[in-house]
Amino acid sequence: MRAVTIVDGAIEWREHPDPVPGPDELLVAVRAAGLNGADMMQRRGLYPAPPGVPADIPGLEVAGEVVDTGAGVTRFAIGDRVMAVVAGGGQAELAVVHERHALAVPTAIPWAEAGGFPEVFTTAHDTLFTQCGLTMGDRVLVHGAAGGVGIAGVQIAARAGATVIASVRNADLRSAVSELGSACGAVEVVAPEGFGEHGPFDIVLELVGAPNIPDDVNALAIGGRIAVIGVGGGASAELNLLGLMGKRGRIHGSTLRARSLEDKAVAARAVEHAVLPLLERNEVRVPVAAEIPMAEAESAYDRFAAGGKLGKIVLVA
Amino acid sequence: MRAVTIVDGAIEWREHPDPVPGPDELLVAVRAAGLNGADMMQRRGLYPAPPGVPADIPGLEVAGEVVDTGAGVTRFAIGDRVMAVVAGGGQAELAVVHERHALAVPTAIPWAEAGGFPEVFTTAHDTLFTQCGLTMGDRVLVHGAAGGVGIAGVQIAARAGATVIASVRNADLRSAVSELGSACGAVEVVAPEGFGEHGPFDIVLELVGAPNIPDDVNALAIGGRIAVIGVGGGASAELNLLGLMGKRGRIHGSTLRARSLEDKAVAARAVEHAVLPLLERNEVRVPVAAEIPMAEAESAYDRFAAGGKLGKIVLVA
Repeated sequence: MRAVTIVDGAIEWREHPDPVPGPDELLVAVRAAGLNGADMMQRRGLYPAPPGVPADIPGLEVAGEVVDTGAGVTRFAIGDRVMAVVAGGGQAELAVVHERHALAVPTAIPWAEAGGFPEVFTTAHDTLFTQCGLTMGDRVLVHGAAGGVGIAGVQIAARAGATVIASVRNADLRSAVSELGSACGAVEVVAPEGFGEHGPFDIVLELVGAPNIPDDVNALAIGGRIAVIGVGGGASAELNLLGLMGKRGRIHGSTLRARSLEDKAVAARAVEHAVLPLLERNEVRVPVAAEIPMAEAESAYDRFAAGGKLGKIVLVA
Repeated sequence: MRAVTIVDGAIEWREHPDPVPGPDELLVAVRAAGLNGADMMQRRGLYPAPPGVPADIPGLEVAGEVVDTGAGVTRFAIGDRVMAVVAGGGQAELAVVHERHALAVPTAIPWAEAGGFPEVFTTAHDTLFTQCGLTMGDRVLVHGAAGGVGIAGVQIAARAGATVIASVRNADLRSAVSELGSACGAVEVVAPEGFGEHGPFDIVLELVGAPNIPDDVNALAIGGRIAVIGVGGGASAELNLLGLMGKRGRIHGSTLRARSLEDKAVAARAVEHAVLPLLERNEVRVPVAAEIPMAEAESAYDRFAAGGKLGKIVLVA
């Protein structure tokens, strides 16, 4: 097979041996594979692949057809349309997926949207609901709301009855975020400057990082939580401990990638239960900013790194 | 009545009007009232009393006899020996206590120990168990383990089956911490330098503050929690967000004082359920470093601020 390959920081399209599905695993002919911030970091050598994952083939999510199954597979069969979070190696013609991590792709969803769904919706759902316990009536701030995880978080938080304040730096993207979000519930789109006026916030989904932390703490409600899952704006934050104590606040850090197989299966089941029905009914959407052929992955990476997009950049076979 | 009074940063012993118990409240003739770090901050004008509490009379915990009861009181009667967390005003001859915040003082416990029990054991129990979900087998680091909250935390964590690493700066106090802690379970006392070697930690009880935060994050176990409840060493911390993400860690800030009446009643019930039986059976102890008459409170404050003590400094009537 051929695969997107990181070679000393460059992105190439190279030959690799075909992967072989082990017990409980599916071999998937990849039709679409979304790009994520973690791929950019892996390209720069800052986010090495966990053990057992091809070190030089990036890609944390795939959608495609099952073309082979390992021993003991029961949930899916050859020919099924699946999508899944993978620990790496997704940006390739073939990828191996644990069957407990795979979700069935709804009939009406095109490949590009399916390829951009798993990572961002799993991350957003796990962070907002499983970790931060989002409940109806919460006031939720999403920083970086035009990005993949951000627009996923805006939609599912609003759909669950939260009041969402979506901060978007790029003024050109605000009306699109507002339109997508408002279809799900109470969403107000604001500039990142002065977001504190819109608080206090029960939950802050922090996709920008260090520069926002002091104001995030100030804008927190009593008992509020800041979930840090992206640090594109910087990783070394100044934290006012007395401020956090006064709010009885919490700061959570997390990543999906390094978790155990079991934890990822639990997260997949939660998404299957809570979010997949919304996708099937077209109540949440996966905005695809661009579909780019896998063989031209380097231009996709450069476009991702340049920012200014709404939603996902997806590599297609 | 007379009460300890903060007058422009000085501590005086002054006349005040007697407080009057409202509905559901007890009037307590205070026999003992522990000092806490928050009193030191209030003296310096950094920790103002919440609304409804005398602004100039410090004191967050009392033990004494009920001498009058407000309307609707059902849990206690005149003559009962009680101890409680109060929002302020505890360092006085008379104090008002909500009956849902009061605990019965076990027969064998002397007044000074009862006066030093409520704040530190409620804080330690709420932080370690209610907030951080301590369970048997956890590896728990307690910074500042010779102080009131620290030695309370060491004892109840060890008693519940955690492995406790107790960091104590003052070498003269380490053997006493070791003795008290080891009576409850697996406790190792270490110097604050190089505590990271003893990790990884599921829970860090942070009573020192900013200087420890970078190493706390580094020494955290996957899914670990840092609970910041004291900042004597500094409040402005440097936080490595990528480090926190990699650990899927959490930083909690909290204080007991500013909570709602209902929240404090819940915390009191939890202590009554989990810790009071241990105190009754002499399985946890309240080490009293000094008993000082209330009228000489200023010397007690100075001694607290100087540090180097094991456990509580308690004002006695």
